[in-house]
Amino acid sequence: MTRRFETVTIIGVGLLGGSLGLALKARGLARAIRGVGHRQVSLDKALDVGAIDEAYLDAREASAGADLIVVCTPAGLVRAKLDEIRPVCSEGTVVTDVASTKGEICAHAQKTWPKPLRFVGSHPMAGSEKFGPEHAAANLYAGSVTIVTLGEDLAPDARQVVRDFWRGVGAAVIEIDPVRHDVLMARTSHVPHVLSACLARLAVGQGDVRPLVGSGFRDMTRIAAGRPEIWRDICLTNRDAILAGIDALIDDLAAVRDMIAASAPDSLEEFFRLGWEARREVLGE
Amino acid sequence: MTRRFETVTIIGVGLLGGSLGLALKARGLARAIRGVGHRQVSLDKALDVGAIDEAYLDAREASAGADLIVVCTPAGLVRAKLDEIRPVCSEGTVVTDVASTKGEICAHAQKTWPKPLRFVGSHPMAGSEKFGPEHAAANLYAGSVTIVTLGEDLAPDARQVVRDFWRGVGAAVIEIDPVRHDVLMARTSHVPHVLSACLARLAVGQGDVRPLVGSGFRDMTRIAAGRPEIWRDICLTNRDAILAGIDALIDDLAAVRDMIAASAPDSLEEFFRLGWEARREVLGE
Repeated sequence: MTRRFETVTIIGVGLLGGSLGLALKARGLARAIRGVGHRQVSLDKALDVGAIDEAYLDAREASAGADLIVVCTPAGLVRAKLDEIRPVCSEGTVVTDVASTKGEICAHAQKTWPKPLRFVGSHPMAGSEKFGPEHAAANLYAGSVTIVTLGEDLAPDARQVVRDFWRGVGAAVIEIDPVRHDVLMARTSHVPHVLSACLARLAVGQGDVRPLVGSGFRDMTRIAAGRPEIWRDICLTNRDAILAGIDALIDDLAAVRDMIAASAPDSLEEFFRLGWEARREVLGE
Repeated sequence: MTRRFETVTIIGVGLLGGSLGLALKARGLARAIRGVGHRQVSLDKALDVGAIDEAYLDAREASAGADLIVVCTPAGLVRAKLDEIRPVCSEGTVVTDVASTKGEICAHAQKTWPKPLRFVGSHPMAGSEKFGPEHAAANLYAGSVTIVTLGEDLAPDARQVVRDFWRGVGAAVIEIDPVRHDVLMARTSHVPHVLSACLARLAVGQGDVRPLVGSGFRDMTRIAAGRPEIWRDICLTNRDAILAGIDALIDDLAAVRDMIAASAPDSLEEFFRLGWEARREVLGE
């Protein structure tokens, strides 16, 4: 079923929020889209590209009377935004977000919002290294996967609204426990990202290495081009799982270091063989 | 100047050796190409695809009378092959190789070959995850970069032959000291490769994570698909530089680990910002 909304409020009109606005409009899924930003210049850009119908600097004002509110700020600001808008949410309002970490945000909502919860967390696995409403695209979510969080106190109709919303903009929906989400994302995305930055730093200061740099280095450092403040927030809001992942990685690196130091051919070949097999298993190839 | 060879001997007719044969023939740069393999089945494939004219199981027999010999075995076997063919090389024979590590191989040649040296090391930065003569391609080296080693005792005409050879098959040539080559490759290729295998291993055993795995993970583990025995040899023949690189990486990971454990937002943002800038500097963007 395609669900149409009367008023959708998007808090944070960057790449993700702006693309949601464009997708909702392109698919005729919302009568009115309100955008909230903390700088007028971002709001003007979002209006220019047609991602929102009305611009607000005040999240509360924009949230009053909305039937769906999507918090699209960086992960570190989501909890504060939820605190800010909670008083103006009506009984029917459904709230979600787009942050890449879910444990802390869902635990905060669980503690502070009335039950049954009408906040249901989301993590759309879409985006690019670009940012800002000027790069927003109506098809950003088409064919992507959005994770929607599970939880004991969620209002069933709110869960349904959030699932329908993401399917409406073209995403497939997977539901998962927020803590498990964070562990899996630490291992498949957050730790790789930290490492990508470390690798880029490792190659710097060695003189002009440009002619020697192949596609491997380029591939492995591509995600180091993400926005520093986004990744800072991810590290701060998924601390335990990322620390555990980094510790496991350091242990594995130390083990292969010892194999190299000992010139152990069989162990090294096995190490690389297991890496190869691990990749195939993870990717299901 | 385009240099034409009478007889070129290619020891090891896999992807790299087979592609050299095809490139030489396609460009009319060699009258006869001899291929050496340790299995008849590989030699038959190389004959089938037209990469070589004559097949040999014995490297000495194939090397006698050749004007150019290219050792295309895995890095760990190059020194033994050089020892094997040295007695049959005539005064005019020029020898090179294609191994990804250069320090040990060049030091070995320096110690064991007559001076002025007619062995000049090469590292063509071309290839793919595929292997075997059946994937050989005449244009594998076109537009690529080949590193040719420098050294005090090299015969000037042998250096010129090796440079002309690589330019003949379409590569640009950069000359560099073998030890410096190994340090730079450790930081831009070998350590990233070790890390890619570690990352793949980190994500395994967490249940079915396929729907959650994005392009970042895919990019960062792509090079983990290399052949285990090739990377084993690279680790064994570039030990010191790879160990130093892994140590630097573990230190950097431990530092960012401490920032995350301390929930230090400014340090973390700076860490990611420096990673971003390092990538741009290394790639010259």
